[in-house]
Amino acid sequence: MHAIGVDIGGTKIAAGVVSADGELLASTRRPTDPTDAASVDAGVVDACRELMGSYEVGAIGLAAPGFIGTDRATVRFTPNLPWRDHPLRDNVARELGEGLRIVVENDANAAGWAEFRFGAARDADDMLLLTIGTGLGGAVVVDGHLVRGAWGVAAEVGHMRVVPGGHYCGCGHEGCWEQYASGSALVREAQAHMVTFPERSERLLELAGGRPKKLKGQHVTQAAQEGDPLAVELLATLGRWIGEGSASVAALLDPALIVVGGGVAEAGDLLLGPVRQGFTEQLSARGHRPEARIVAAEMGNDAGMVGAAELARH
Amino acid sequence: MHAIGVDIGGTKIAAGVVSADGELLASTRRPTDPTDAASVDAGVVDACRELMGSYEVGAIGLAAPGFIGTDRATVRFTPNLPWRDHPLRDNVARELGEGLRIVVENDANAAGWAEFRFGAARDADDMLLLTIGTGLGGAVVVDGHLVRGAWGVAAEVGHMRVVPGGHYCGCGHEGCWEQYASGSALVREAQAHMVTFPERSERLLELAGGRPKKLKGQHVTQAAQEGDPLAVELLATLGRWIGEGSASVAALLDPALIVVGGGVAEAGDLLLGPVRQGFTEQLSARGHRPEARIVAAEMGNDAGMVGAAELARH
Amino acid sequence: MHAIGVDIGGTKIAAGVVSADGELLASTRRPTDPTDAASVDAGVVDACRELMGSYEVGAIGLAAPGFIGTDRATVRFTPNLPWRDHPLRDNVARELGEGLRIVVENDANAAGWAEFRFGAARDADDMLLLTIGTGLGGAVVVDGHLVRGAWGVAAEVGHMRVVPGGHYCGCGHEGCWEQYASGSALVREAQAHMVTFPERSERLLELAGGRPKKLKGQHVTQAAQEGDPLAVELLATLGRWIGEGSASVAALLDPALIVVGGGVAEAGDLLLGPVRQGFTEQLSARGHRPEARIVAAEMGNDAGMVGAAELARH
Amino acid sequence: MHAIGVDIGGTKIAAGVVSADGELLASTRRPTDPTDAASVDAGVVDACRELMGSYEVGAIGLAAPGFIGTDRATVRFTPNLPWRDHPLRDNVARELGEGLRIVVENDANAAGWAEFRFGAARDADDMLLLTIGTGLGGAVVVDGHLVRGAWGVAAEVGHMRVVPGGHYCGCGHEGCWEQYASGSALVREAQAHMVTFPERSERLLELAGGRPKKLKGQHVTQAAQEGDPLAVELLATLGRWIGEGSASVAALLDPALIVVGGGVAEAGDLLLGPVRQGFTEQLSARGHRPEARIVAAEMGNDAGMVGAAELARH
Repeated sequence: MHAIGVDIGGTKIAAGVVSADGELLASTRRPTDPTDAASVDAGVVDACRELMGSYEVGAIGLAAPGFIGTDRATVRFTPNLPWRDHPLRDNVARELGEGLRIVVENDANAAGWAEFRFGAARDADDMLLLTIGTGLGGAVVVDGHLVRGAWGVAAEVGHMRVVPGGHYCGCGHEGCWEQYASGSALVREAQAHMVTFPERSERLLELAGGRPKKLKGQHVTQAAQEGDPLAVELLATLGRWIGEGSASVAALLDPALIVVGGGVAEAGDLLLGPVRQGFTEQLSARGHRPEARIVAAEMGNDAGMVGAAELARH
Repeated sequence: MHAIGVDIGGTKIAAGVVSADGELLASTRRPTDPTDAASVDAGVVDACRELMGSYEVGAIGLAAPGFIGTDRATVRFTPNLPWRDHPLRDNVARELGEGLRIVVENDANAAGWAEFRFGAARDADDMLLLTIGTGLGGAVVVDGHLVRGAWGVAAEVGHMRVVPGGHYCGCGHEGCWEQYASGSALVREAQAHMVTFPERSERLLELAGGRPKKLKGQHVTQAAQEGDPLAVELLATLGRWIGEGSASVAALLDPALIVVGGGVAEAGDLLLGPVRQGFTEQLSARGHRPEARIVAAEMGNDAGMVGAAELARH
Repeated sequence: MHAIGVDIGGTKIAAGVVSADGELLASTRRPTDPTDAASVDAGVVDACRELMGSYEVGAIGLAAPGFIGTDRATVRFTPNLPWRDHPLRDNVARELGEGLRIVVENDANAAGWAEFRFGAARDADDMLLLTIGTGLGGAVVVDGHLVRGAWGVAAEVGHMRVVPGGHYCGCGHEGCWEQYASGSALVREAQAHMVTFPERSERLLELAGGRPKKLKGQHVTQAAQEGDPLAVELLATLGRWIGEGSASVAALLDPALIVVGGGVAEAGDLLLGPVRQGFTEQLSARGHRPEARIVAAEMGNDAGMVGAAELARH
Repeated sequence: MHAIGVDIGGTKIAAGVVSADGELLASTRRPTDPTDAASVDAGVVDACRELMGSYEVGAIGLAAPGFIGTDRATVRFTPNLPWRDHPLRDNVARELGEGLRIVVENDANAAGWAEFRFGAARDADDMLLLTIGTGLGGAVVVDGHLVRGAWGVAAEVGHMRVVPGGHYCGCGHEGCWEQYASGSALVREAQAHMVTFPERSERLLELAGGRPKKLKGQHVTQAAQEGDPLAVELLATLGRWIGEGSASVAALLDPALIVVGGGVAEAGDLLLGPVRQGFTEQLSARGHRPEARIVAAEMGNDAGMVGAAELARH
């Protein structure tokens, strides 16, 4: 049976037909107007209709950012769209017909499930996915089950506290992991060095057109790949924070595998090497237990669609 | 069907017959010689035989400290007994007959399962148990399943890092949660105050016979219950660390319920009040999600036996 | 002999005639144009000329923000004015006549010297002044001598690091003391609570006209003085950071007196109580040494003028 | 005029005749009995008498550990000797004759003064001395004056707090600098690695005779000098803590020179390189100010005697 997966973002909707073995057979897109809740629903419906014109589909998975109700039907809260306790499943089902199985899932969970079923963790039973983007998102699989939590808001890994009294976070707290282990943290740290240590920052300044404020995460990755010492060091610092925090998660959950995704993960071993070192050095009971493998994500940008479809199928 | 639960400690073995609804019908004990691995096996067998003389038993659960293999048969490593990759199940099965279902479980997991099935969390699907003793132990239940981890070493909550560069831990790392959220931490903090602020420590000094080194956790609880301001403050500090760390776990797992057990939990709301406050203040996305309830454990010292029996039954 | 003290700020110049016993006999002001270095010099000269028309003056002290050269003549760097290695003393001397003794001093040092000679520390030989404003400034007196440092940049107390990996500071580093012990820190912390705990923030929200972003430090002080529990707690948190950091300074310098100034100090014992408690709890070797007294500053806004004049006189 | 300097320790007294230009002309020793206060006094007197038999002496400086009264005559408190408010100067003067100028100084201050007058800081006016031993001691010179503090207990640098909630210190507080920047910290960190990472610790284990508990600081230095990667890394971590803490002191005092002494300083640039790097990276306003030079101490074990004699002379 084919299923449709829909990945709903702040600026666009991506929808695709996914086969039972995780292959993306066709896809389409719609822009979203983040100020108009109804238009987002309509865009989802429209994209699904287009795909259902060419493929027979038995289920639809809707991956949305934010907090999803345990009914897997309602978006309780999402920061980038005007949805509050929004009955997304019912709105879509009303248009597409009640015969379809439709579920709503958190987008990071959907992406994580794609990695777990078809990607880097396809041979594992227990997985921690970390997605290093603007923030730090993730997904947790325990003994083959996706962990959604009692109220559907599990795997907010980025808001585990790693430094008491640490950096302010947009969430209102201090010292959240994502303030140290995200693309934003990388850029902020790089910019601070560009101001304080201009003599070490020549390549980064060049890539940013001479203006620290214009620096992007990709510039750091590029410079590191060219061998720029400061960029290598900045990625290593980021990697250590990812790895050290993962050791705390491993104390709690003992996963077999830690999958690192997101744009910065393209830096490869320049990032993953320090992740592994930070993890190993902070892992409790090291030597008396196996160590989780740490690998790069494999599913790329389609992960949300593929995972949402797969979650809807079962 | 009745089952036997055995709780194996460094100084004694406690074994009991447990009914299907968690009632402890009979129990017995054996001393353990922590230097003699074979004698511990023999003690387990002997205690079970005694109980099997009076009750018909279909399963045996063996709760042991340390790391248990994913085969639920082998003790991989335990700090207080001379067991390394020790085939505990087979040793016991050889003596008691192969017809019995026998499983080995981590002792904190067994105690947690008792709370989950019959105790404070009997109505919940998702639970974090924290046991505040010499160290900080615990158990995690996600969606009705006990989390054992990929290699059986999950729920080592006490070794999540809460302060980078923080207190040294016996495990070789720095800043482990149990260095801030345990009975040992409470006593150490109290002793430091007794030296530095003798004028605020009169009651504690009295209870400790005038010698800070003789202070015990119960003294702090007793003084707090009498209203001693310093003792109240020390329990509050301990409680805040428990609550703040729990907020990080909640960001990851979103449990419905957090159960606090161990000797210090007898302080009741003098401890649980600050736990709740610390949790609430550090909980991410507060206001956009329900908050986990935080309650005292109910099963007491029998939890290990009851939980082990129940885990063996299924 | 009378002397003139000039306090040069980003928006105005304040100049006054000060007697040998620290009395301000007359004063005048000029606006400053922070984009025009020459106009600031001219304003200083003009203000001094006005005062010299009515008083016989033997010395002029110029208090400027930023880093002052050890020649006490040059402003090396100042963040709010376009001065870089600016020969302030010579520019002023050229206009007012070479017979006068003219010195340039850091403005926080000048204010500190006023407290030391005529204010809260007039009976002490060793003092730490902390000025709690937008940032955290200060001055240090050791054995009767103002500490200017090898290059004139001592007493940048706000940039001592108190939390490794802590809040970002405008200076490019992390965890600077002023990120925890300043009016800005107070407001930021209050705003975070207004968002996360609206039910505890009613009075603060009211004072801020319903908008957290409009909250000012005075609102917190006012609410605390009315007894609002959250405001009291916020001042206490601020106070503890001031006191705990002061204990580190005391380990290094062992001052007799710590003087706390700046707008927030108007909260009186609502602030100073927690400062004293934080200091006492963190003071090393407590019980084997006397403890520094902690008092409010007394000299108010004239401190810069009075101190600059006094420094020029000797 | 010659002067005698006496360095009083927990196990021995070292006394020497020092010329006006800091040359040690003769010296002698006496053992101390740390349980018998009077015997220490007698040992001091006896050693001085021996030296006064061969040299004409005008002053005696007595360097003692612990807190020295501002009268420079009394030892208020010392951890390793049974002295509490002990009138050391008067006891010695009674025996040696009232005509001599005799002063009591803190031993770290005396050693610091030797470096300042005759050693690594002889050309500087402002100095921070850090002595990396079992703990972290030091001395501070501001504008040519030794900083003794209002009550004689300044320069307790090791008890500045660098990590809130950090390692316990023997002083009863948490996170003291000496818990991160001392020979003890180096050894403790090395031992933790030897247990957790035996595969990286082969050389250290060898030097320690296979037993982590037998490791000494010199073993780490030796292994680092041989190129052992773990030992190099351990010295670098120690160095960074020394340098980063020094940056906080520089924000307060702006010294021209930071002198690093004590046994570990023999590692040379293996230690001083990371000290400099940590200092530079954490120095506030870097680029707008000169940076303090960081150099090794030069005076060795005689520093206490030489400095005490020099302080007595003036």
